[in-house]
Amino acid sequence: MFEQLKKDVFAANLELVRRGLVIYTWGNVSGIDRDKGVVAIKPSGVSYDDMTWEQIVLIDLEDGKTIEEGALNPSSDTPTHLYLYRAFPALGGITHTHSTYATAWAQAGKDIPCMGTTHADGFRGCVPCTRYVDPEETERAYEAETGKVIAEAFKGRDPMHTPAVLVRGHGPFTWGKDAAKSVYNAAVLEETAKMALLTYRINPEAIELPHWIQDKHFLRKHGPNAYYGQK
Amino acid sequence: MFEQLKKDVFAANLELVRRGLVIYTWGNVSGIDRDKGVVAIKPSGVSYDDMTWEQIVLIDLEDGKTIEEGALNPSSDTPTHLYLYRAFPALGGITHTHSTYATAWAQAGKDIPCMGTTHADGFRGCVPCTRYVDPEETERAYEAETGKVIAEAFKGRDPMHTPAVLVRGHGPFTWGKDAAKSVYNAAVLEETAKMALLTYRINPEAIELPHWIQDKHFLRKHGPNAYYGQK
Amino acid sequence: MFEQLKKDVFAANLELVRRGLVIYTWGNVSGIDRDKGVVAIKPSGVSYDDMTWEQIVLIDLEDGKTIEEGALNPSSDTPTHLYLYRAFPALGGITHTHSTYATAWAQAGKDIPCMGTTHADGFRGCVPCTRYVDPEETERAYEAETGKVIAEAFKGRDPMHTPAVLVRGHGPFTWGKDAAKSVYNAAVLEETAKMALLTYRINPEAIELPHWIQDKHFLRKHGPNAYYGQK
Amino acid sequence: MFEQLKKDVFAANLELVRRGLVIYTWGNVSGIDRDKGVVAIKPSGVSYDDMTWEQIVLIDLEDGKTIEEGALNPSSDTPTHLYLYRAFPALGGITHTHSTYATAWAQAGKDIPCMGTTHADGFRGCVPCTRYVDPEETERAYEAETGKVIAEAFKGRDPMHTPAVLVRGHGPFTWGKDAAKSVYNAAVLEETAKMALLTYRINPEAIELPHWIQDKHFLRKHGPNAYYGQK
Repeated sequence: MFEQLKKDVFAANLELVRRGLVIYTWGNVSGIDRDKGVVAIKPSGVSYDDMTWEQIVLIDLEDGKTIEEGALNPSSDTPTHLYLYRAFPALGGITHTHSTYATAWAQAGKDIPCMGTTHADGFRGCVPCTRYVDPEETERAYEAETGKVIAEAFKGRDPMHTPAVLVRGHGPFTWGKDAAKSVYNAAVLEETAKMALLTYRINPEAIELPHWIQDKHFLRKHGPNAYYGQK
Repeated sequence: MFEQLKKDVFAANLELVRRGLVIYTWGNVSGIDRDKGVVAIKPSGVSYDDMTWEQIVLIDLEDGKTIEEGALNPSSDTPTHLYLYRAFPALGGITHTHSTYATAWAQAGKDIPCMGTTHADGFRGCVPCTRYVDPEETERAYEAETGKVIAEAFKGRDPMHTPAVLVRGHGPFTWGKDAAKSVYNAAVLEETAKMALLTYRINPEAIELPHWIQDKHFLRKHGPNAYYGQK
Repeated sequence: MFEQLKKDVFAANLELVRRGLVIYTWGNVSGIDRDKGVVAIKPSGVSYDDMTWEQIVLIDLEDGKTIEEGALNPSSDTPTHLYLYRAFPALGGITHTHSTYATAWAQAGKDIPCMGTTHADGFRGCVPCTRYVDPEETERAYEAETGKVIAEAFKGRDPMHTPAVLVRGHGPFTWGKDAAKSVYNAAVLEETAKMALLTYRINPEAIELPHWIQDKHFLRKHGPNAYYGQK
Repeated sequence: MFEQLKKDVFAANLELVRRGLVIYTWGNVSGIDRDKGVVAIKPSGVSYDDMTWEQIVLIDLEDGKTIEEGALNPSSDTPTHLYLYRAFPALGGITHTHSTYATAWAQAGKDIPCMGTTHADGFRGCVPCTRYVDPEETERAYEAETGKVIAEAFKGRDPMHTPAVLVRGHGPFTWGKDAAKSVYNAAVLEETAKMALLTYRINPEAIELPHWIQDKHFLRKHGPNAYYGQK
């Protein structure tokens, strides 16, 4: 039952380790079967070395409960994933990491501006940084409210054009059409975050990439006139 | 005799190398059998490649002397470890490294402030930096006095809530319920130290994580209401 | 047909991964057979893990079209490579990456000054940063115009003496007598870019390497009186 | 003939690669047989992957000429090594690298101050940075004169107490009782250089390690009262 989804989510979680985006049990990746309304996600606090694909936890999107008897506890960030799947119907996979440079931007409380084509190839416009979750929200339902502050930051923006966000004081969430693509975006975000920091180290007056080159690079890779890659 | 303790401490020392926290013979990990009052620690100046578990040195907590005839010299930092085991009864393992970023904070003479949830998950409040060991203390018993200045820095704080310290001008010590957990905390500290430095590079006016999120993250992982991980 | 050229270009592309200069499908290397007027280049968007040497795409230098029936799409940066091969007849290979530090200088819009002998051994004078491609050029033929702004930046300079450039807001292109040498220069550029950034972090008033040492190092390795290496 | 010396120098050169201190053919290590007055050094421009121990080049310390017929060209930096062996009779091995952080300090033209015990364990006082080799010296005998400016920087200092130097605008040379120890010192220098840079990033007002702790750490490891390591 949902064997392929579990295996895809399992593989995507292991890719986090290979890409140097997480250490120990940090981070988590989920994927969703939209037809069945089922989310698959990493179990909480399980080491990547020991994890098996069978341990990936299945969650009902509607009620947020685990589906299989005897399942492990899902990632403690599961309510954030569920909030995002509900708020953004285009999402097929979500990744959360504490990758070093993206987390530093989140801690700094700053949007990552689009400084170059590496950023523009993957993310349209800045990668936004949310506000802090406030005391009342933290008390009520911290992880679900984290999803809410992310959704706020995307008011008026298409989450599939900028598949990444920084949760202030916490770290990045990224997403994509499936679990694998959300991990790809997590890796691109980390590289982009490092380059942006270094750019300002070299030139504190550095300016953002002109909008015409931002558009060109994004549309080279995305949308009906994309011409990057193979057909 | 104490074979399991020696093997655990041996494995924890090798983990320092795998995590990139030490080079050559730098660093040392110890563990303690509280019932027997025996500490096991890395031998001094022995390379991690050549070391065998039998070479781990057993020390009597009370008199500080080696227990086995023909034992190698213990780490030159042994008196610091012994001081900490005596001062903090909850400690089961201690790690000392010269890991790059944590050591830079120690050299800068600054506490590491809690800038984000990566820090809050592992350490409650700032990671304190001690004062320098003074000339008289250095002359008298440098390594034991290093333990004393660490204990000073924890006056009024629970060392198990913030299992890490920076010895000014020297480097980090971390601890935990056993040797393995003290190495885990050394790795988390290094990552935290790097993120905090980068945060201030991005935004010199960055502020600490609000106390309500600090509390939330610490208590998600620690104490009776923790809900991270498996039962 | 052109098997050796394809294999050389294939090997040079894989070297990008081994040197840590690219992730995923980023970057591309080409080589040219000057006698036949044929360029070999990486296919677009193909992962380095899956690529075979047979998939390297052959392009006619004159008309810019693929030579073999059923060939994959060539790198989307192919028109930049072709422009450079036409503008600079000495080039035998070209590499494009988004390597972290060189890209940060490109995003900062700054030439990399010659701060030391590591730079002087490989590049005579600064590594220039181009202007941005303007809106009209972007619209007309973005990739070919990128080649044009590179050529502009070398007005009055010998591209074989400084086999590297930063395209503003984008990233580095490097070249050499063949594909392998262009990758070597990409790796040297990345190291040089990192060192230059760090130099200014240590000393914002740091000065360029005196011209007599710049000349000495360049001529130790290049030209008729070179005495580095074996005969 | 000198097989052991050649093998030791060969192994020390390969260690440069393993420690991440060099790329491609950069860097070189030599060792000396003081009794015979023979220096063994890396051949010039040979890749570490292809090099065999037999290719290590033997040089007569007195006349600076290769000893074996058909020998490869020695490292172009050989006259610097020879100058240092003649100026400092205690040296048994010498290493030259362009390791990233040490080279950045050399390019910045700054001594590396002793900011912590990692530095003090290996180097007594600052690691000095030389002046530039001047135009006349560069013209006359660049590599030998590089040795001379190094010797100048050690006027009144014991080179075995501070077995490292930064050649301004160029990079580090380190040494020790043999080739292996000179590589060890190159690795320690690189780590020390990185930590010192980071220390000032965290706290521009950071102060040097107090002299009493500098002395304590150096003498824990060196001299008649050393107590680090095994007997």
